[in-house]
Amino acid sequence: MHERYEKEKIKAIWINENKLALWQETELAVIKANCNLGKFPAEVFIKMNQFLTQAPIDISWWKKRDVEIRHDLNAFLEERIRFISPDLQQYWHKNITSYDTEEPAFAKMLKMSVDIVGDSCDKLLATLFELAKKYRYTIMNARTHGMEAKLQSLGKRCLTWLKELWIGYGNLQTASKNLNYSKLSGAIGNYGGLDPEMEKEALVILGFMPFLGATQIMPRILYAPLAEALCQIVQTLDKIATDIRLGARSGRPIFQEPFGKTQKGSSAMPHKKNTISTEQLEGMARMAKGYLIMIMDNIKTWEERAIEQSCVERVAWPDLFHVTVHSLENMNKVLSGLVVFPDNMLQEIVESRGCYASDEAKELLKELGAPFGLTSEEAYRIIQLAAFNAFEISENRQIFRAAIAESLEEADRFLTGFKLLRASDPREFACQPTVTLETIIASGLLSTSPQLEASAETVEQWNKILSQIFNDPGNLRRWQEIFQPSFLLKNEAKLYKEILGK
Amino acid sequence: MHERYEKEKIKAIWINENKLALWQETELAVIKANCNLGKFPAEVFIKMNQFLTQAPIDISWWKKRDVEIRHDLNAFLEERIRFISPDLQQYWHKNITSYDTEEPAFAKMLKMSVDIVGDSCDKLLATLFELAKKYRYTIMNARTHGMEAKLQSLGKRCLTWLKELWIGYGNLQTASKNLNYSKLSGAIGNYGGLDPEMEKEALVILGFMPFLGATQIMPRILYAPLAEALCQIVQTLDKIATDIRLGARSGRPIFQEPFGKTQKGSSAMPHKKNTISTEQLEGMARMAKGYLIMIMDNIKTWEERAIEQSCVERVAWPDLFHVTVHSLENMNKVLSGLVVFPDNMLQEIVESRGCYASDEAKELLKELGAPFGLTSEEAYRIIQLAAFNAFEISENRQIFRAAIAESLEEADRFLTGFKLLRASDPREFACQPTVTLETIIASGLLSTSPQLEASAETVEQWNKILSQIFNDPGNLRRWQEIFQPSFLLKNEAKLYKEILGK
Amino acid sequence: MHERYEKEKIKAIWINENKLALWQETELAVIKANCNLGKFPAEVFIKMNQFLTQAPIDISWWKKRDVEIRHDLNAFLEERIRFISPDLQQYWHKNITSYDTEEPAFAKMLKMSVDIVGDSCDKLLATLFELAKKYRYTIMNARTHGMEAKLQSLGKRCLTWLKELWIGYGNLQTASKNLNYSKLSGAIGNYGGLDPEMEKEALVILGFMPFLGATQIMPRILYAPLAEALCQIVQTLDKIATDIRLGARSGRPIFQEPFGKTQKGSSAMPHKKNTISTEQLEGMARMAKGYLIMIMDNIKTWEERAIEQSCVERVAWPDLFHVTVHSLENMNKVLSGLVVFPDNMLQEIVESRGCYASDEAKELLKELGAPFGLTSEEAYRIIQLAAFNAFEISENRQIFRAAIAESLEEADRFLTGFKLLRASDPREFACQPTVTLETIIASGLLSTSPQLEASAETVEQWNKILSQIFNDPGNLRRWQEIFQPSFLLKNEAKLYKEILGK
Amino acid sequence: MHERYEKEKIKAIWINENKLALWQETELAVIKANCNLGKFPAEVFIKMNQFLTQAPIDISWWKKRDVEIRHDLNAFLEERIRFISPDLQQYWHKNITSYDTEEPAFAKMLKMSVDIVGDSCDKLLATLFELAKKYRYTIMNARTHGMEAKLQSLGKRCLTWLKELWIGYGNLQTASKNLNYSKLSGAIGNYGGLDPEMEKEALVILGFMPFLGATQIMPRILYAPLAEALCQIVQTLDKIATDIRLGARSGRPIFQEPFGKTQKGSSAMPHKKNTISTEQLEGMARMAKGYLIMIMDNIKTWEERAIEQSCVERVAWPDLFHVTVHSLENMNKVLSGLVVFPDNMLQEIVESRGCYASDEAKELLKELGAPFGLTSEEAYRIIQLAAFNAFEISENRQIFRAAIAESLEEADRFLTGFKLLRASDPREFACQPTVTLETIIASGLLSTSPQLEASAETVEQWNKILSQIFNDPGNLRRWQEIFQPSFLLKNEAKLYKEILGK
Repeated sequence: MHERYEKEKIKAIWINENKLALWQETELAVIKANCNLGKFPAEVFIKMNQFLTQAPIDISWWKKRDVEIRHDLNAFLEERIRFISPDLQQYWHKNITSYDTEEPAFAKMLKMSVDIVGDSCDKLLATLFELAKKYRYTIMNARTHGMEAKLQSLGKRCLTWLKELWIGYGNLQTASKNLNYSKLSGAIGNYGGLDPEMEKEALVILGFMPFLGATQIMPRILYAPLAEALCQIVQTLDKIATDIRLGARSGRPIFQEPFGKTQKGSSAMPHKKNTISTEQLEGMARMAKGYLIMIMDNIKTWEERAIEQSCVERVAWPDLFHVTVHSLENMNKVLSGLVVFPDNMLQEIVESRGCYASDEAKELLKELGAPFGLTSEEAYRIIQLAAFNAFEISENRQIFRAAIAESLEEADRFLTGFKLLRASDPREFACQPTVTLETIIASGLLSTSPQLEASAETVEQWNKILSQIFNDPGNLRRWQEIFQPSFLLKNEAKLYKEILGK
Repeated sequence: MHERYEKEKIKAIWINENKLALWQETELAVIKANCNLGKFPAEVFIKMNQFLTQAPIDISWWKKRDVEIRHDLNAFLEERIRFISPDLQQYWHKNITSYDTEEPAFAKMLKMSVDIVGDSCDKLLATLFELAKKYRYTIMNARTHGMEAKLQSLGKRCLTWLKELWIGYGNLQTASKNLNYSKLSGAIGNYGGLDPEMEKEALVILGFMPFLGATQIMPRILYAPLAEALCQIVQTLDKIATDIRLGARSGRPIFQEPFGKTQKGSSAMPHKKNTISTEQLEGMARMAKGYLIMIMDNIKTWEERAIEQSCVERVAWPDLFHVTVHSLENMNKVLSGLVVFPDNMLQEIVESRGCYASDEAKELLKELGAPFGLTSEEAYRIIQLAAFNAFEISENRQIFRAAIAESLEEADRFLTGFKLLRASDPREFACQPTVTLETIIASGLLSTSPQLEASAETVEQWNKILSQIFNDPGNLRRWQEIFQPSFLLKNEAKLYKEILGK
Repeated sequence: MHERYEKEKIKAIWINENKLALWQETELAVIKANCNLGKFPAEVFIKMNQFLTQAPIDISWWKKRDVEIRHDLNAFLEERIRFISPDLQQYWHKNITSYDTEEPAFAKMLKMSVDIVGDSCDKLLATLFELAKKYRYTIMNARTHGMEAKLQSLGKRCLTWLKELWIGYGNLQTASKNLNYSKLSGAIGNYGGLDPEMEKEALVILGFMPFLGATQIMPRILYAPLAEALCQIVQTLDKIATDIRLGARSGRPIFQEPFGKTQKGSSAMPHKKNTISTEQLEGMARMAKGYLIMIMDNIKTWEERAIEQSCVERVAWPDLFHVTVHSLENMNKVLSGLVVFPDNMLQEIVESRGCYASDEAKELLKELGAPFGLTSEEAYRIIQLAAFNAFEISENRQIFRAAIAESLEEADRFLTGFKLLRASDPREFACQPTVTLETIIASGLLSTSPQLEASAETVEQWNKILSQIFNDPGNLRRWQEIFQPSFLLKNEAKLYKEILGK
Repeated sequence: MHERYEKEKIKAIWINENKLALWQETELAVIKANCNLGKFPAEVFIKMNQFLTQAPIDISWWKKRDVEIRHDLNAFLEERIRFISPDLQQYWHKNITSYDTEEPAFAKMLKMSVDIVGDSCDKLLATLFELAKKYRYTIMNARTHGMEAKLQSLGKRCLTWLKELWIGYGNLQTASKNLNYSKLSGAIGNYGGLDPEMEKEALVILGFMPFLGATQIMPRILYAPLAEALCQIVQTLDKIATDIRLGARSGRPIFQEPFGKTQKGSSAMPHKKNTISTEQLEGMARMAKGYLIMIMDNIKTWEERAIEQSCVERVAWPDLFHVTVHSLENMNKVLSGLVVFPDNMLQEIVESRGCYASDEAKELLKELGAPFGLTSEEAYRIIQLAAFNAFEISENRQIFRAAIAESLEEADRFLTGFKLLRASDPREFACQPTVTLETIIASGLLSTSPQLEASAETVEQWNKILSQIFNDPGNLRRWQEIFQPSFLLKNEAKLYKEILGK
C-alpha cells in the first residue's frame, strides 16, 4: 500500500517478522500437541521451545534461502532447524505440510486485522451516535433524487448512516466467525501420517477449532465473506461521504469538512475549501471493490489446491485492510470535525416554500376535499400546481431566464443587470416568505402554469372549492399544523428510541 | 435484457433468426469459395444456394433438435441438410468445424451492433455540438470539488462533455477494426483438410480478412477492446449525467430534466421533479462494468479452446449493447430537452461574491504588491482572508448558526424566527452585492477571521498596503477588469475554434 | 436472461404479473393494518379487497400508462383506482410513498427466489452426499499443483466439494435473514403522516419485521450479502467443474460427463466427448461475478435515495438467480450422471510409482535413519532422488526425448519409430511395477540424477545406509506398510464421520 | 506492491523523488515557455533553473509540510520557493493550477512505465518467436475442451500464443498514444489568466501536444485503454500459463517448468515438481483485473473535477505496472527454461489411437462412401463408432472399471490386483498400436458399442460397405495418408510464413 494510506497497525501484522513468528507458533503448537498426546517424548516441546525462542528468526538469512530454493516455508524450516539439536530434528515439521503451518498463521493475521477494523468501527459508530443525539432536533430538508423532499432532523440522517454502518459491522462479525477454524490435516487434507486428535489438540492451543473437509488448504469461500464485509463497509462510507459532499457544495452549504487555519484549499484559488477527505473516500471505495474482485477469484483452485491464491492474498488482504481502516479513520476525522450550518438548513427550508409538506398537504386535501367532490387525482394535481406556482418568478427575472447572450460583452451586461435586479427588485427576496404552498392553497390563489395542463376554468373551479374548504377555521388550523416541524417529525422519536435506545 | 431497456434494433441482431441466417451465409460462402477455386464443381454453389434460400430455416425444428443432441450448430446443419439433395450433402460443412461457421457470424453481429451504437453516438455528439454553440456565452460557475471555482460558459462545459464522448467514440472505432478479421482454419486453427486459399476467398466474400494464428476460435483478446470502449462510453455518460444531477439539485437549480405536462414526479410528493433519467444512467454504468468484467474473463481459455466463453457471449454482448444504446438515447433525450436556467447561473455567480476570480486576483495582487514588499505567500493569504470575509454573516444570523434546538417545539420556533429574520433583516440580502472579494480588497477592508490565523496587526498592515496599491487608478482599473466575464472567458475562443471548428 | 439459461420458476417470480400482484398485496396490507388499528373504518379493507381481487390487473393498460407518466408505481395506482368506488379512493395508497409499496414486494421476490436456489442446493448436496458414500473406498491420486500428490478416496474429494458448497449454502441462509425486514416509513423514512404502529401491523401481515433506520428505501447493504452468497456458490461450482474437467482430459480420464447415445461431441471430430457442461459452469461463474459487481455498486445512493439502483436490480437480480439455479441444476445433472473410471484411477496410482507415499516415506526414513546418522535433510533428499530415479526412462526412449524434428517427414518417421518402440521395448511397460519409490529405497538402488546435485559418492553412501536399515525385517515391514491404501487412508474415517455423520 | 512482486524499474518511476523532479520539470517548462513568448523577462528562466537545479528537493521537508497544509503540490511549491530569490517568486507557478503541474508529470510516469512493459514484451515475444521456430516440426495433440483433438506442431501452439500477446502489445501501443497529450489550461480548463500559446510552447518543451477540452484535469477516459491493455496482456499470460500447467500435469507431462537442482517442490512430498510460476500467473491475472476495475471507475468525476481518482492512481497504476512486468518476466523465465518432452507427446499421439484424424477420416469417408450410398450422417456415425471401439477395454480390466470397493482392505486388494493385471495382461499394452481408428475402419472391424445406438444389423452393414471401399488399394492409400503428420500439418507452413515471416 502507498505510504500515504498505509496504517502502522495493519502493516505490523502483515510484515515478514510477524508472519514467521506465527509460523513458529504453529510449529510449536504441533509439537506440544504431539507431546500432550504422548506421540513425542514430553521433553521435546520444552527443549524445542527453548531452542527456538532463544534464537530470533534471521529474516535476511531466510530471504536469501527462499530465493535459492523458491519455497518460503521450506526456507523458514531450514532457518529454524539450524538451532535445533540433531536428535530433535526428526520432530521438526513432522508429518505436516507447508500449508498446515501457514493456514493457522494466515487466519491469525486476518483475525488481528479484523480487530483493528473493529476498533475503528467502534470509534466511528460512537461518533455517529453522538452526532445523532446532538442534532436530534436540528431540522433540515431531506432530499430524494437530489430534490428537497420533506423535513427531517439531521440526527435522523445520522441514524440512517449509523444503521447502515452497523449492518456492515455486523456482517464483518459474522464473517469473522469463519476465522475460528483452521486445519492441520496434511498435504491433501486426509491426515496421511497425521492424527485428527493431534490436529484438534494443536488447534485448540492456537485458539482454533478444526475445519473438517479441507484440502491442502482451507477452502477460500470461508474468507470471501470477510472481504465482502470490508468492501461493504467502505462502500457505506462512500455513501456517507457523498451525502457530506452534496451538502457541502458551495452556494449555501449545510456541511463543511474540517479545514485547518493554515490549510490551503487550492494552489490557484485561495477561496477554496474543498471536500478532499470525502472525495478520497470515493477513491477508497473504488479500490476496495478491486481488492474484493481479486479475492472472490480465489475461491477457485485446482483439485486439492494450486497456488494461484498466494500472491493475491499477500497483496489484496493487507491492502484491503489498509483501505478499510484508513477510510474509517478518515471518516471519523471528518465527522468528528464536521462543520454544520443550521442556519443554512433553515434557509433551505424557508426557500423551499412549504413544499416540504406536499405529501401531508395532498393527503389532508384529499380528506377535506372529498365532501366537496374533489377526487384523489384532483387533490394531487392541485398540490402539484400550487407547488409550481410557488416557484414562479418575476417578469424582470423571466427576462434573464429566457435570454441567451450572444457575445462575451453581452455576458458582462447580463451579469451587471442581474446584480441590479437583485439589489433593487423586492420580489427577489420578499416573495419567498409569503408565496408558499401553504398560503396559495389556503387562500385559493392557484393560477395556471405553462408547465402543467390544467386549464384556466379548472383552476378557477379549484380555487372556489379551496376557499370553501378553508373558510372552515377547523380545516385551516389542521392545514397550518402540517407545516410545523413538530408535526412532521413527531414519529422520529420511534427511531431514536429503537436505534439509540433513548 | 429487461424489456424496459431492450432496444429493438439490437434485439433484431442477436435473435436466433438472424444468427442462423448468418451461419447459413458462412456455409454458403465456404461453398462458393470452394467452387471459385475449383475444389467443388461450379454448380454446387448455385444449387446449394437455391435449396437453402428457398427453404426458410425452421427455428422450432432446430431448437428441438438442439435439445436432443446438445449442439446448436450441429442441429442447424441437420436442419439445413434436410433440404439438400443427397448428391450434394458431401459438400455441406465440408472440412470445416462449428466455430468456422460461428466466428464470422459472431463478428458480423458485433459489427452490426457497433453500427447501431455509432448512430446513437452521432446523434448525441450532434446534440452536444448544438448545445455548445447555443450556450457559448452563457456564463456559469465552474465547480471543482463541488465548489464554485471560476467562471466558464455553459458551452465550454458542453465542449468537455463532447470531447470526452468523442474519445470514447474513437476508442470504439479503433476497437471495431478487429471485427474486420475472422477465421476458417478448422478445428484447431492449422487448416487440417482445409486450404488457406479457401479461407481467404470465403472470408473476402463475407467481408473479412483472415486472422492468422487462431485456434479453433478467434482469440478473445480481439474483442475485449470493444467491450471496453462500450463500457467507457457508458461511464462517460454517467459522468455527464452526474453533472446534470448536480446542477438540478433543488434550491437554485441551473438544470432540469425534461418534465412532461402530465408527468408525476412522486406518488407521495406532488411537488417533485426528479432527475430519474440521469440517475438511471448511473445504474446503466454499473451494469456496463459488470458486463465488461464478464467479457474480460473470456480472454482465458484452455489450449486450443474450451467453451466457457459461449454462454457469457450469448448474454453479455447483447446486454452490453442494449445498455449502451439505451444510455446514449436516454442521454440524448435528456440533453435535447434540457431545461437551462441562465438566471440561476447568474444568481450563483452574484452570490459567490467575486470569489470566481480569486485566481486572477491572487496573481494580480502578487504583481501589484511586489513593489510594496508583499510576498507571494502574503498575496495568497490576503485573497484567502478576503474571500472568507466576504462570506461572514450577520450577528442575528450567527445566533441561528450556533444554536442547537433541544426539542421539536424549539425547532418550530427556530423556523418561525428564521422566517422573520429573512423577511426583516436587510443584511440577509443587501450584503451580497456589496461585500465581495472585489470590494474588500480594493477598499482595504480586510478583517480578521476566526477561521484563519492572521492576527489583527497583520490584517491592519495588509489593509494599509492594499489602500496604497489601489490608490493608483490604473491598478484599480486592472483590478476591476479581472472580475469581468469577458476578461475571464476570453481564451475559451481557442477551445471553440479547435473543437467545434468555429 | 437468454432463453437458453432462463429458469421458468425464477422467471415466474420476476415477471410484471407477479410484481404487480405483490404491490397490491402491500397496498391491501396497509389498508388492513389501518383498519385493524382503527384509523380507517373497518369495512374499508373488506370492500377494497373485494374491488381489487375481483378486477384482474390489466398489464397492458398499466404499461401504456407508465410510458405516459414515466412512473410505474403511479401507473399501477391509477390502474387500480379505476376499480375503487370514489368514496374509498382517499384510503388508497394513503400517506405512503411508492417505495413503501415496492420494498416489501421486492424483498418477497428475493425471498421466493432464494427458496428456489435452496431447493436446487438441497438436491445437489444430496447428490454429493450419495457420491461421497458410494466412493468412500475408491482410491485415486489426490493432486496438488496438478501433480499427483498422495492417495485419497474419491469419496473424500466429494466431501471437500460438499463442505465447500455447504459453506456457500450457509452464507446464503445467513444472508437471507435480512429479507425478513422491510419498511413502510414514508418518503424519507421518518414516517411523516404515517404511524410506526401501522408499519409494524402491516409488515407483520406481510410476513416482515420493521427495519428501523431506512430512508425512502431499505439500505442496499442489506442485500449485498445475498448477491455475494449466490456468487460464491457459483464460484464453488466452477471449482468443482474444473476438477471434473481436469479429471476428464483425454489420455487416461478418470471422469467423463454424461454423454447421450445420440449426442454429437463436435461437428468436425466425431470421436469427441467434450466437457461442455462443466466448461459452461466456468462461463456462469464469470457472469455471476459481473452481476455481483453491479449489485455491490448499489450500496451507494444520494442522501435519502436516488433511483440508480432500480434498473440494475431489474436486470441483475433475476439474471443472477437464473445463473445460480441453472448452474446448480447443471452441476447436479453432471454429478448425477458422472461416469467414473476406477480402473484408470488405479492405473494412475500404479504409474505414479509409489511417489504417492513420499511424505510418509520421508518421515519414516527420518525416524529409521536417525540411528544411522541420517539427518532430516538427507532423508528428504534421498526420497527426492528415489522419486526422480523411478521416472528415469530407457535409452531408446531418451533418443525420442532429445531429438527435435527438422521437417514434417522427420515427424512422420519419429511417430512411426515411436510406435515401434512402444510395441517392442519391454521397458516401456515392464519397468513400471518394479521400479518404484518403494523398491528403490528398500533395495538401496539409488543412482545419481542429472536433475539433482547429489554426487556419486553421496549416493553410494546413502545406498549403504539404506541396505543396513532395511536389512531389519521389522523396518522393511513398516516400510512396505506405508504404501498400502488402507494405511494411508485410515484417518479419512474421521472426515466421513464428522461430515456425513457416518 | 508487496516486495516479492515489486520491480525496481517501476518503483524508480513512481517514487516521490521522481514525481517531484517531474513536477519541477513542468514548472520550469512553463517558465521557459513564458520567457520564450516574451511574457516573462528572458533571464527569469535561466535564474530560476539555476536556483532549482542547484538545490535538491528535500523530500522530508516536503512530507512534513504536506501533513500540515494537506496539499502535496502546494507543499512542493513552498519547498521550492525557499530557494527562489524574492524578486522572482511572482513568476513561480504563475497562473497555473496544481493539476497543470501534475498532469504532464503523471503522463510521463505512465509513459516511462509503458516503456518498461514494452521492453519486457519484446523479450517475451522474442522467446516465443524462438520457441515457435525450434518446435516447428515437433508434433503433439492439440486439445479442444481438454480432449485430444487433432495433430499440430508445438511451434504452431507457440504461434497462437505469440499472436495473442502481439495483439495485447498492439493495444498497449495504441493506448499509449494518448500519453502524447497533456494540458496547462488552468483550474477549470478554460485558461483563465493563461494563454493557449504558452500551453502549447510549454507542452512541446515537455514532449507533449495540448489536449483541448480538458477540465482541471485530463479526462480519465484517455488512460482507461492503457489499463485495459495492461490487463489484457496479463490475462493472455494467464492463458499461456494455463496451457503449460495443463501440459505439465503429472502422469505423462509434455511440459515442465524449470526446476533447480537444489529446489524443493514441497515441504511434505519430496517427489513434487510444482508449476508454481504458472500458477502465480493466474494470481497475477486476478490482481490485474482488480486494478483495472479501480481505474475504470476513475472516468467519473464531478463537474470540472473532484479528487476521487488521486488515491486510486497512486496505488493502482504502479501496482498494475508491477504486476504486468512481473508477469511478463515470470513468463519469460518459464518459457526460456521450459522443459519439453517430445517423447511424451508422441506417446499421447500413439495412445489416442488414430482419433487425431477423425475429422479428415469423416470427410474422406463421406467422399469414398457416397458411391456406395453412405450418407454424410452415416459417415459421421461410423467414425464415431470406430473411435469408441478403439478405446474399448479388455474384460479383465472391465472388472476393475465396474467394481466399487467396500472397504479399505478391498481397496488394497484392488490395487494389488491391478498391478498384476498391468504386469501380465498383454492387452493392456499390445492393443494400442493395432486397434486404432485407422485399422478398424480400413478392415471393416466395427462392433456395436453400449455407448451408441447403432444396432448390430446396422454395424454389420457398415462393415460390409467399408470392406468394399477399402478393397480398392487407391482408397486405402488415401485413407492411410490422412493419418500422417506430414499430411495433417502441411498447411501450417502458411502460418509460419505469415506470422514469423519464414
